[in-house]
Amino acid sequence: MTGRLYGVGTGPGDPELMTLKAARLIREAPVVARFCKAGRLGNAGTTVAGLMRADVVVEELAYPVTTELPLHSDAYRSRITAFYEESAARIATHLAAGRDVVVLSEGDPLFYGSYMHLHRRLAGRFPVEVVPGVTGMAACWAAAGVPIAQGDDVLCVLPGTLGEDALAERLAGADAAVIMKVGGNLPKIRRALARAGRLDDALYVERGSQPGQKVMTLAERDADLPAPYFSIILLPGWQDVALAQAEAAE
Amino acid sequence: MTGRLYGVGTGPGDPELMTLKAARLIREAPVVARFCKAGRLGNAGTTVAGLMRADVVVEELAYPVTTELPLHSDAYRSRITAFYEESAARIATHLAAGRDVVVLSEGDPLFYGSYMHLHRRLAGRFPVEVVPGVTGMAACWAAAGVPIAQGDDVLCVLPGTLGEDALAERLAGADAAVIMKVGGNLPKIRRALARAGRLDDALYVERGSQPGQKVMTLAERDADLPAPYFSIILLPGWQDVALAQAEAAE
Repeated sequence: MTGRLYGVGTGPGDPELMTLKAARLIREAPVVARFCKAGRLGNAGTTVAGLMRADVVVEELAYPVTTELPLHSDAYRSRITAFYEESAARIATHLAAGRDVVVLSEGDPLFYGSYMHLHRRLAGRFPVEVVPGVTGMAACWAAAGVPIAQGDDVLCVLPGTLGEDALAERLAGADAAVIMKVGGNLPKIRRALARAGRLDDALYVERGSQPGQKVMTLAERDADLPAPYFSIILLPGWQDVALAQAEAAE
Repeated sequence: MTGRLYGVGTGPGDPELMTLKAARLIREAPVVARFCKAGRLGNAGTTVAGLMRADVVVEELAYPVTTELPLHSDAYRSRITAFYEESAARIATHLAAGRDVVVLSEGDPLFYGSYMHLHRRLAGRFPVEVVPGVTGMAACWAAAGVPIAQGDDVLCVLPGTLGEDALAERLAGADAAVIMKVGGNLPKIRRALARAGRLDDALYVERGSQPGQKVMTLAERDADLPAPYFSIILLPGWQDVALAQAEAAE
């Protein structure tokens, strides 16, 4: 009897935004694994603190590099691939011994997450189950209280790491958009929004659902202030529909 | 003292995929409102059955029309606008009397949902809070066990109601895509995928996280079988990255 691998979304940060299923699996799990920077608890680790069994075995999967090497370099790719291989091997040891393993994933496990690197290495060899979670972007649009998309709206999710031209082109063609991984990319994102004629529609949200949450229009945000990596830009769709319906209703 | 309006995401269907916060608010609420077809419990209503207070007041907001009138006709727009106005007025009566109201929303309240029609009519007059939820699409990619997007992937969410040309163009430009509102649009979606050269990558998921869940490649699905409205097509991104990393790892 081998153990079962669970990729569990822990949601956007507020522990109450975990699903009932995630909370149950984390409470029951003999082994909980989490990705983190070396020596840090990680966002998902913070979210589930106090929920785990007293005798739980915690596997810390500490990224060997984060921003020290360029993302698209061979050196980065080779270090990070070796890290995922080694992490999968550590988890496979537990599974082979019959112990279930819950891998914590901030937001949703299969939406821009690290869990998928374990999933594709282990899914063929062990039973696996993915438990979806509330994404960080959903917490951001809930905080802003804006309908992100409706009806025939096309919604584009864009990593802020894209080049300025690609961003501007995508933004011009989208009814609604979410730009993730903002951080140091903010000046470039601002230029791309301006080129697409969408700067005035953009909202800036920081730490959605977490302590220190901030929501403001991008226009009113101090352009010189650095933005954290997990801040998000929202370009809500639906505005025309809303106005049309408001008029129809009057 | 007025009551508080809560727009609460109930998740994709499996009651265990509700958040802890949604479950708490539904248990505590004196008034629970839900959208539905006349005489039907509705998906969200089914999800929360058994959770509500014994003395709860349930406000059924039954759509006056669904598919009887064309979506973009004046007749449809005027009927549905009057319905949202009247629904908001019913809820405002409870709020004005000091009763909190939880409005159930399948998936996430602000992601292609009906809740936003109440939100924009009531948010200026009463305290409101939106509780994000797990989307139906996240349950579908969890069921399929495929990473939907990673790294620099651009993810497009496309309503199947779009025209064939628009669909084909969007699909050709997206790394990853989700096509919602499939139903009777499936033959058109299939043609658009073929034109974009993406038919072989497409997965078909029906009733993600619900009883009767089905996952298959679109290619292996009988083209003549009608698809339910809430089925979804997934076009996972990340495949190139996965292959590149697998090769790098070997």
